[in-house]
Amino acid sequence: MSNYGNEEINIPTPAAVPRKIQAVAKATIADDNVWQWIHDAAASSPIQPTVNLGTGFIDHNPPEFLIEAHKKALDSVDSNQYAPVTGSDLLRQTIAELYSPLYGRQLNPVIEVCVTSGAQYIYQIKMAGGTTRYIPLRPPKSQQKTRVSGNDWSLDIAELEAAITSKTKMIYLNNPHNPLGKVFTVSELTAIGNLCVKHRLILLSNEVYERIGCNPSHTLTTVSLDKLLNATGWRVGFVIGYEALIQPVIATHLVLAYSSSGPAQDACVVGLREAEKRGWWSVSAEDVGARIRRLCRALDETGLTYVAPPNAWFVVNIDKINLPKEYKYPPLFGIASIPGSCFYGPDHKALGERYVRFGACKSDAGFELAEQRLALLRPHVSVSL
Amino acid sequence: MSNYGNEEINIPTPAAVPRKIQAVAKATIADDNVWQWIHDAAASSPIQPTVNLGTGFIDHNPPEFLIEAHKKALDSVDSNQYAPVTGSDLLRQTIAELYSPLYGRQLNPVIEVCVTSGAQYIYQIKMAGGTTRYIPLRPPKSQQKTRVSGNDWSLDIAELEAAITSKTKMIYLNNPHNPLGKVFTVSELTAIGNLCVKHRLILLSNEVYERIGCNPSHTLTTVSLDKLLNATGWRVGFVIGYEALIQPVIATHLVLAYSSSGPAQDACVVGLREAEKRGWWSVSAEDVGARIRRLCRALDETGLTYVAPPNAWFVVNIDKINLPKEYKYPPLFGIASIPGSCFYGPDHKALGERYVRFGACKSDAGFELAEQRLALLRPHVSVSL
Repeated sequence: MSNYGNEEINIPTPAAVPRKIQAVAKATIADDNVWQWIHDAAASSPIQPTVNLGTGFIDHNPPEFLIEAHKKALDSVDSNQYAPVTGSDLLRQTIAELYSPLYGRQLNPVIEVCVTSGAQYIYQIKMAGGTTRYIPLRPPKSQQKTRVSGNDWSLDIAELEAAITSKTKMIYLNNPHNPLGKVFTVSELTAIGNLCVKHRLILLSNEVYERIGCNPSHTLTTVSLDKLLNATGWRVGFVIGYEALIQPVIATHLVLAYSSSGPAQDACVVGLREAEKRGWWSVSAEDVGARIRRLCRALDETGLTYVAPPNAWFVVNIDKINLPKEYKYPPLFGIASIPGSCFYGPDHKALGERYVRFGACKSDAGFELAEQRLALLRPHVSVSL
Repeated sequence: MSNYGNEEINIPTPAAVPRKIQAVAKATIADDNVWQWIHDAAASSPIQPTVNLGTGFIDHNPPEFLIEAHKKALDSVDSNQYAPVTGSDLLRQTIAELYSPLYGRQLNPVIEVCVTSGAQYIYQIKMAGGTTRYIPLRPPKSQQKTRVSGNDWSLDIAELEAAITSKTKMIYLNNPHNPLGKVFTVSELTAIGNLCVKHRLILLSNEVYERIGCNPSHTLTTVSLDKLLNATGWRVGFVIGYEALIQPVIATHLVLAYSSSGPAQDACVVGLREAEKRGWWSVSAEDVGARIRRLCRALDETGLTYVAPPNAWFVVNIDKINLPKEYKYPPLFGIASIPGSCFYGPDHKALGERYVRFGACKSDAGFELAEQRLALLRPHVSVSL
């Protein structure tokens, strides 16, 4: 028997990791490499510095009342120590109070709300041994208009139903949709809800950016509170649903994270209440709107077709770009973006191939550079296809 | 086809949740109910208010330099937005710098450190479909001394090896041990390390409370940075290991949490450096030591046998207590505690039956009440068994 004190340093290889875990890790990291790849592509651009319109990284601070509330929470002994597994009582009460009117029923903060710490849904399904099937949103047929709406992208409900098998457990919906900003219509939501009722499926509704309900009774709604309040680094969100569905969410949260940040939760209580009181939601929407309009003007100048969604991202159609031979498209003349194919499942990558995602969450300095860069595109855009 | 807009409210029952998930959720919540149960038991005590010596809830704040650093981080735009998946560059560099000497080799902060957000190891193994086998620490045979050492509890290495099968992937070690405070000896660690080498197992070493290494090459070491710095509610920890082992940790962290709190990470950079610079580790150890000595004195008065571990918890033997008939032991005369059986796996609960865990992380006011309560025990403790 060897003595590890005298063991030759035997640096582990991937073979030390069980094969199943290796496979999941490899797939996850490969998929996530889009960020690394954008970073590398941006670094290799002949035009520097690159403006990063690719990631959703917000380059301005959350509102001052939220920051002040967080600082105050840090002076409280209770805030700094373990928060309850399901979240602070006050935060759950606040969520129930503010979201009950949106749900049209009184939410019970004790058994129908669980505060959580972030998630990557698709990978979690894979890691739990589940199978994912992707139903694509298809772009509008006509590409001739300068500006189209995210709502022009369409979901084929028959295609969705055809993908449901006896093993299907859940439909996962992202509404409003990232990156299109498409808000699903009442008729689309009704059709999706009907499928859930008919096939006894749970609806997992990921409403990251907005407070719009879509709630047949078997719905779990997830909300990223930190995104809502411009503090994506704080890792506080929540899940709302009926008790029978929330219980497993609580158990899973307990196992995976145990609890979420105490001071950040306390700050969010004040943040939510102040945002309501001060009308900050519309201030925030107006701020995003102004950034979107600014990027729209710059895109209008280029002559490209794009989607300008409310409160979300840009999807730009690059069909009309005749790039100089020496160019590979990302980065587009010193602008980092995310290829549209990243937003499609493995069977539908082609649908996104002629699109890139631009984020509008930039500061003035970021915009000025972006405007200069977009102007460089102008000579390479065809007037008509 | 029904229209969910008109759907009768059909409140989901547990049957709406896949059976496998129901089972895991039920087991997790049942196990975790020890906290609820302590809470209920404390509430039902005839002596009120109850002193909660059960949980490890720290009732004083982290050091001022850590709080100030967190407040400062909240003024930084970068801190408030998404931190990198593996943790902030500066935090990983700081960890590598401070822990390399403890490891006796230069840690690479880019590929050998991953910042994480908390975990419950045993449940995660179950949730991933793994099987857990528990090897108990057995109490010393003699119960006659007033005070015994956590190190008197023993691990049977032959029993550990006998539990290893061809399917075993990992040995999970908690060192120093909670609640005994047992620091495994070099000879024990060598024997455990040898088993890992011999059977090609990964060693997952959970070193929550201390910075003591036990590192054959196939070791993943987890450290709760927030516990180390008295801020259990901040949810920042890290994992150290060779690249091949850290890669799946990164992938899993990406899937489960995406990233950890940005401002808390930045605060921890300052916290770690200041703690080193100011000698705060020994200030903190002395502070815990003083609390332990104070509780020791109160326990000495009762005549009970107990373990007074350095830097951890109390384990009190209640063999000698002859409780009045009307009493069920938790709570012991208005003191909430955790039954020792909670720290044993299903096959070994009996080993912990005559023990309770007391925490020494109390403020002066908490101690004063605890002392009064413990004095009530005195008449019910036998002088000898």
